[in-house]
Amino acid sequence: MTRNLLLISNSTLHGSGYLDHCADEICKFLGNRKTVLFIPYARPSGITYDEYTKVARERFEKMGFKLTGIHEYKNPKEAVKSAEAIFIGGGNTFVLLNGLYKADIIDEIRIKVKDGMPYIGTSAGSNVACNSIKTTNDMPIIYPPSFDALNLASFNINPHYLDPDPKSKHKGETRETRIKEFHFFNSEYVVGLREGAMLHIKGEYVTLKGTTGARILIKGKEPKEFKPGDSLDFLLKK
Amino acid sequence: MTRNLLLISNSTLHGSGYLDHCADEICKFLGNRKTVLFIPYARPSGITYDEYTKVARERFEKMGFKLTGIHEYKNPKEAVKSAEAIFIGGGNTFVLLNGLYKADIIDEIRIKVKDGMPYIGTSAGSNVACNSIKTTNDMPIIYPPSFDALNLASFNINPHYLDPDPKSKHKGETRETRIKEFHFFNSEYVVGLREGAMLHIKGEYVTLKGTTGARILIKGKEPKEFKPGDSLDFLLKK
Repeated sequence: MTRNLLLISNSTLHGSGYLDHCADEICKFLGNRKTVLFIPYARPSGITYDEYTKVARERFEKMGFKLTGIHEYKNPKEAVKSAEAIFIGGGNTFVLLNGLYKADIIDEIRIKVKDGMPYIGTSAGSNVACNSIKTTNDMPIIYPPSFDALNLASFNINPHYLDPDPKSKHKGETRETRIKEFHFFNSEYVVGLREGAMLHIKGEYVTLKGTTGARILIKGKEPKEFKPGDSLDFLLKK
Repeated sequence: MTRNLLLISNSTLHGSGYLDHCADEICKFLGNRKTVLFIPYARPSGITYDEYTKVARERFEKMGFKLTGIHEYKNPKEAVKSAEAIFIGGGNTFVLLNGLYKADIIDEIRIKVKDGMPYIGTSAGSNVACNSIKTTNDMPIIYPPSFDALNLASFNINPHYLDPDPKSKHKGETRETRIKEFHFFNSEYVVGLREGAMLHIKGEYVTLKGTTGARILIKGKEPKEFKPGDSLDFLLKK
């Protein structure tokens, strides 16, 4: 397997612009590829595919890449088949996964990624790359045909991971409590990927990148902290 | 229709014990009824039905009511049929709704509530009383057969409603942004019920109770603030 994925927690980090905090990693990751296929299905704040693609296109052009929205093609399957690299942006994870099922491109993306096509995801786009969307933070505003996702990696991600705030008076569950509840019914590893963190998966190797680290939650065990640069290959060994 | 529902945002308010902030309302609401049927399906933090029922039983006994868990009956349908009042506690909304479908008691609860049986919900238990669970805050750790809920009221609730924190550096969506995204795909009114707030629905009348107020979000309109004691009958007129 020659999969090659860059799974980013968040597209915009506090104090900087869209994709600024991960632009260097994206450029290095894409190497000498020239074009990127963008999937705008997650529609953050409900914006249209055109509006979302415009934002992504301008940012990728600044990095030196040509970007096209999948909705600009007649046939989304053919668009995936001919893609040099793919970028799935954030927004609502349920809307995104529903869009992937509706366009019937799940198998095409799997085949291409297995074949080495670079995959970039941010937020919801990182969720859907993994085993399921069962650890998304998003509101279930659309009922998708399944919570099973692309399964390009066997674990799950919780993007925008938040540490508990000891001063909070709010009684809603903390992120860690929610993920512990997930582990009452599921056994996949969960990577709590803080804003500013990302994972690079290359074949059977996983490296934690970015600046803020990650907390990994394993069923029945104490959560573990990892720092930028750490190898997380064990995530794929389960 | 003689429905009678008390839908509470949260079971525990900062600085007080389980159900303390709503105990007076619950006593008034239940009046001279003596027994309550408890549905522990939402399993907060993954606790068992027995453990959860013990917590609820002790609190309701303190208020002067006898409480039994639905899992203590051989036949959950019969348990609902013979119930004098029902209380559905919080936890994970997906796990709860899945449990209601699995026990096949959705129709029984609807019939009983239409017939005047008092219904108390906290958090996830308030979510499932409404049109759908599409405005829950919970993680989708189980895939239920549908997001359609009991529909005892035609609107939706967002419990534990959180106002945006102007100082936050976190770039995950605010609650209001998430509900606006809901309104790109759905048209139900959404009651953002702050911790400490509750709704009393009696027939076609809705009153906001508690201490903290609510923010009501309507598709295509500016959100509106309401304060304790306000009449919200318009919620049922859509």
